[in-house]
Parts: sequence; C-alpha cells; structure tokens
Amino acid sequence: MVPEITLRSERRTQLIEITGDVERALEGVEGSAALIFVPHTTAGVTINENADPAVARDFERALERIVGNDWGWQHIEAGEENAPSHIRSALMSPQVIVPLNAGRLALGTWQGIFFCEFDGPRTRRVLVTPLQ
Amino acid sequence: MVPEITLRSERRTQLIEITGDVERALEGVEGSAALIFVPHTTAGVTINENADPAVARDFERALERIVGNDWGWQHIEAGEENAPSHIRSALMSPQVIVPLNAGRLALGTWQGIFFCEFDGPRTRRVLVTPLQ
Amino acid sequence: MVPEITLRSERRTQLIEITGDVERALEGVEGSAALIFVPHTTAGVTINENADPAVARDFERALERIVGNDWGWQHIEAGEENAPSHIRSALMSPQVIVPLNAGRLALGTWQGIFFCEFDGPRTRRVLVTPLQ
Repeated sequence: MVPEITLRSERRTQLIEITGDVERALEGVEGSAALIFVPHTTAGVTINENADPAVARDFERALERIVGNDWGWQHIEAGEENAPSHIRSALMSPQVIVPLNAGRLALGTWQGIFFCEFDGPRTRRVLVTPLQ
Repeated sequence: MVPEITLRSERRTQLIEITGDVERALEGVEGSAALIFVPHTTAGVTINENADPAVARDFERALERIVGNDWGWQHIEAGEENAPSHIRSALMSPQVIVPLNAGRLALGTWQGIFFCEFDGPRTRRVLVTPLQ
Repeated sequence: MVPEITLRSERRTQLIEITGDVERALEGVEGSAALIFVPHTTAGVTINENADPAVARDFERALERIVGNDWGWQHIEAGEENAPSHIRSALMSPQVIVPLNAGRLALGTWQGIFFCEFDGPRTRRVLVTPLQ
C-alpha cells in the first residue's frame, strides 16, 4: 500500500501547503528520496516559497492567466467547465521528488510542497512513496 | 539496459497515450515506482485524463498557444522551425514518475500517461525504469 | 549527506548547462536513476538541447514572455521584484530524474541538463541523489 494524504480544497484554484503532512507520512521511513504523487487530472503539485502566502496567491492568478478560461475548449461536460484545469495541472506536474537527508525532506530554506487545486472545491488524495 | 518503448507520431503536435505500453514494459518487475523518461528535446511526457480524447486535443492546442510559433526565435536550422517545440516539451517535462502498488501503476481513476510530440511526425523512444 | 553542486549565475534569467557537473557528482555511484534537485524557489532545472546555445537563449526569452513581469503581483519585497521568477521556476520544475545505464546518465543524443536561473545573479546549489 502506498501511504496517502487526504485533503479538502475550498476554491476553484488554490495552492495548499502540504509539507507537514508529507513529513508525517514519512515518519520512521528510510530512503534516498520521497515521491509525492497526485492521482487526479485537475490538480497537481509543486514546490515553492512558503514564507509569504502572497506567493501562493500569485501562482493561482498566474496559472489562470497562462491558460485562459475562454480558449475555445473541446472538452466540455455537463455542469463542468474544467478543460483549462487539466492543462494548468500538467504545467505544475503530477509529482515532485524530494531528496531525503537522514529521514528528513532536504528542502531549501524557503521551500514548501504545495498541492495545486485547479477544479475545487473537492476532496483530494496525495500519495507519498519513499524511494531507496 | 533500460527497457524502452518505440512509437511513431503522425502530427507535428500530438499527445499519444502510452499507459498500456508502460504497463507491458513493467510486467514482472518489482519496485516502488516507475520512471518514464523521454530522451528527446522536442517531445515530453505528462499524465492526464484518458477518458475523453478531447482533453488530449485541448492540450495540443493549448501548448501551441502558450508558446507561440512567431515569437522571434534564435534557434533556426535549415528545414526546421522547431524552436517553440523545445519550450513546449520542457513545460510538459522530460519525465514522469508513478508509484507502483503490487507491481501495477498506482494511477488515479481518470489518469493515463501521454507521450507529448511537439515536432512530429517522427519515430520516438521512451525509457521505462523501475525504482526501488 | 546528499552530494551537491555549487554554481554562480550571471544574469537575471539564465540557463546554465550542468551535465558535466552532474556526471562528476555521480562518479563511482551505482543506481537506476539520478535525482537532480534545486533547493531554491526562484530557480529550477530542465533537460533540453545543448548542441545549439541559441536554444537556451530561446528558453530564457520564452519564460519571460509566458509569465509577464507586469502582471500585478502580490508578492513584493523591498528591493526585490521576483514574483514572476517563482512561477517561471515552477514551470521548469524543481527537479529532473534521469535513468542511469551502467553508471552513466542515459540522456538522449541532444539532451543536456540545464540549471534555470530566474532571479540572478546568485550563488546556487543543486543536489544530486542516486536512486536504486
């Protein structure tokens, strides 16, 4: 079984820091690195600054601007308008891999791991896998 | 030797699902995750929805719009106009890593692995490496 | 300890090839793949063509165009205007993972590994971790 984190997003586009959740999922684990994988198609994961919350807000607005809502999408489902959410998720990517140093994430001073919601609010899962 | 997949693209920009090919390359393999790596500079790989083929078409058009053909590129080769193909490939990324659960890709319900061609038609390779 | 590379960037936005540095960091190492991780929030790493230096220059200009300097950023620090640098870094991604073949990077013919500076000039670190 792959250990997993469950979380709840509150907005359509929302970066949510999950560094602490990933650290807890890795407690007692040995390995060279940790794979953090998002098993969804309208959400992703990235690593960036967690000191100033404005950075996460900037990501949210930038991704909505890099991929426009009004680009004439082919993927249309009743009640859903999430075509750009798929592209935004892929730009952030479905996974990050962080080296481990003595069992702890070897993140830089300003780095945190952020779940990237692009079609919320929803309940979401994140898989955390140690690699040797 | 790293196991590999060979495939043929048919259009300049084309997402091609390779989930089944990756599964076959991993048959009988044990590990914690699989690294899917593209050894080309004008193609990449991503994970996204494989239920509605329109999603792949939306990716193709969106990547051509995010990085324009007419941006005044410096990289020009006789007979080639593939400068934007390099950037599009990097935005999708050269690799994805998927956790394995009892030998099978732990993909989400709607997820498939897509080879991303940005300078086709060409014959291409994808390397599949199990990680412990 | 995770082996690391130190480098110095010279421009605000600059791709710097580090393939040789990564190969040296991996000398004598055994494994299935190498994780190359950037512990910074305004720099990333990608893999692309290293034959024509114009490709790296095209990346630099394209990333500055995909994410505009004038988008009305919320993250503002005295003396810093690096909000777009964070997004550009995430688009390139904080890590790449390359399969190893008999101890050597299994890169394609035209591929090189590039450190991506988006808030230089600065002294930067890159972590190189073998994975089994």
